[in-house]
Amino acid sequence: SSSATTIRATLFPGDGIGPEIAESVKQVFREADVPIEWEEHYVGDQIDPRTQSFLTWESLESVRRNGVGLKGPMATPIGKGHRSLNLTLRKELNLYANVRPCYSLPGYKTRYDDVNLITIRENTEGEYSGLEHQVVRGVVESLKIITRQASLRVAEYAFHYAKTHGRERVSAIHKANIMQKTDGLFLKCCREVAEKYPEIKYEEVVIDNCCMMLVKNPALFDVLVMPNLYGDIISDLCAGLIGGLGLTPSCNIGEGGIALAEAVHGSAPDIAGKNLANPTALLLSSVTMLRHLELHDKANRIQDAILNTIAEGKYRTADLGGSSSTSDFTRAICDHL
Amino acid sequence: SSSATTIRATLFPGDGIGPEIAESVKQVFREADVPIEWEEHYVGDQIDPRTQSFLTWESLESVRRNGVGLKGPMATPIGKGHRSLNLTLRKELNLYANVRPCYSLPGYKTRYDDVNLITIRENTEGEYSGLEHQVVRGVVESLKIITRQASLRVAEYAFHYAKTHGRERVSAIHKANIMQKTDGLFLKCCREVAEKYPEIKYEEVVIDNCCMMLVKNPALFDVLVMPNLYGDIISDLCAGLIGGLGLTPSCNIGEGGIALAEAVHGSAPDIAGKNLANPTALLLSSVTMLRHLELHDKANRIQDAILNTIAEGKYRTADLGGSSSTSDFTRAICDHL
Ligand SMILES: CC(C)[C@H](C(=O)O)[C@@H](O)C(=O)O
Ligand SMILES: CC(C)[C@H](C(=O)O)[C@@H](O)C(=O)O
Repeated sequence: SSSATTIRATLFPGDGIGPEIAESVKQVFREADVPIEWEEHYVGDQIDPRTQSFLTWESLESVRRNGVGLKGPMATPIGKGHRSLNLTLRKELNLYANVRPCYSLPGYKTRYDDVNLITIRENTEGEYSGLEHQVVRGVVESLKIITRQASLRVAEYAFHYAKTHGRERVSAIHKANIMQKTDGLFLKCCREVAEKYPEIKYEEVVIDNCCMMLVKNPALFDVLVMPNLYGDIISDLCAGLIGGLGLTPSCNIGEGGIALAEAVHGSAPDIAGKNLANPTALLLSSVTMLRHLELHDKANRIQDAILNTIAEGKYRTADLGGSSSTSDFTRAICDHL
Repeated sequence: SSSATTIRATLFPGDGIGPEIAESVKQVFREADVPIEWEEHYVGDQIDPRTQSFLTWESLESVRRNGVGLKGPMATPIGKGHRSLNLTLRKELNLYANVRPCYSLPGYKTRYDDVNLITIRENTEGEYSGLEHQVVRGVVESLKIITRQASLRVAEYAFHYAKTHGRERVSAIHKANIMQKTDGLFLKCCREVAEKYPEIKYEEVVIDNCCMMLVKNPALFDVLVMPNLYGDIISDLCAGLIGGLGLTPSCNIGEGGIALAEAVHGSAPDIAGKNLANPTALLLSSVTMLRHLELHDKANRIQDAILNTIAEGKYRTADLGGSSSTSDFTRAICDHL
């Protein structure tokens, strides 16, 4: 039922529990009257019989055309030589920044109740260059690449994000005391961008020290921006502080304003199809997609309903210590809307 | 007063608070009748007027000859082109493994009370190769080097450590899903060594997942072995779990069985000379040195005295929320011997 105000968004439900948790999102969006029409494509570890590939051109085109999408977990195709589909999507769609808001969920107890930070990860280069080779037998090297262009781009995104989201400070995470040229260039770019945002505080924190501070007192941090591998590590560490990847949203930003929100947890094949999966990460990711579309009212309404349902504690999935099914939990969220 | 059974050990008190906390160690060792005679050398950010260098040949020779040493914090010499002295010592003495026992201190409350693990870090290569260059303007690369020799050596040390210290499991930490060749070689070497130690369990954990697990449930880990940068990051993360670098011992193992124990915290120039510094990290490091010398009775006695003093809580330095001076805290430890 597309109307003049309907927005088309791509949906990749993915593998394993993907279809079930994608179903939750669809249900909650319907219930909240979100004016989105889903364009659903399968991307996952099954080969497309027509194209003999794991990823069809139509799937990529759909995201490019719509500018926004939501993806569930994708299993990496088995067998030698297959690149992770997550990495392929990042590359094909030039998803240069991975943004993960991470905040303590009221009512869901972990060792921390004061987390409220955003990790922004450079998503295209660094240690993920894929450039590796054997120098001589028993000696291998891999190349970490840092470019001015990609560093400026992600730094710009981080400061703009901080400014438009009422954040006060950006911390650039690095190891420039050891990698003076690569991480040094990253910092130089961050400093350049920082000058354009005098209202946002800027600091630089060495990654080892950052991890120590995060586990001692995560409230010290606000927005963190960093090269690819540090982002991979720190975003997972932060997810751990509030309960794990089942609870944290993620959104990838690409050139031309593309946003592909994603649940970063695995496809959990052991519980797939059993109505046991926790849809929270995908639901919160869909909220980041709504914010990207500036549908803030809908985003707030849905986010509040999710958080309130978890806080209430009556309906929780097994991974959070409850015994609710995916559909009961989803129903409870709809009731909280 | 050297006797037939006296062992000579090198002492680098270092900069800032170094001399004060080194004094604590000397006092506790005297009180506990440890048969060690210190050979003290200054290494730090002051140039030696005779040699015009930061590190004298005598200092290095002293460690090489004695085989064991203890070092306090060293400030990095100011000015361009100076390599960190820590890195220089690692290189000159070929300190290939950095071992950090990390355990919750009874009576000193953090968010965790169940930490009891050892991180073993490859200390000579990886991202610390120092090989970096600009490819073209705005594009820089740094080389991560992994060798079979260094990987086997640190893996061997980790398994041997596990076996001789009553540990059950070794976890190799990696990112081989991205760096298949470099981290892949590291894992291959760990697997080879694991086969020689069938009594020790072996597992492989991806670094991002490892950090998430560590902050959720550090009790899942026992001995962790990893390439240089991951070790740098994870050992600081773990220190954070139990209160910070002021509380964690560290020992570097070199070729030929050299052991250089060290406090890895900074030289804290702001409180230097004020009798305020916490000597715990250097004291616990000196205990690892005693264990390396197989002086287990002395090691146990001193370690117990330190832990009991902290547990009792009557004497604590300011960084631990108390108001004791370095010398009062040290006196209290001596009284607990
Ligand atoms: C699966 C893996 C290749 C991926 C990464 O390292 O980026 C994952 O950890 C992530 O954070 O999305
Ligand atoms: C000071 C720095 C060069 C050093 C390192 O990165 O190894 C420090 O963090 C450490 O862990 O000893």
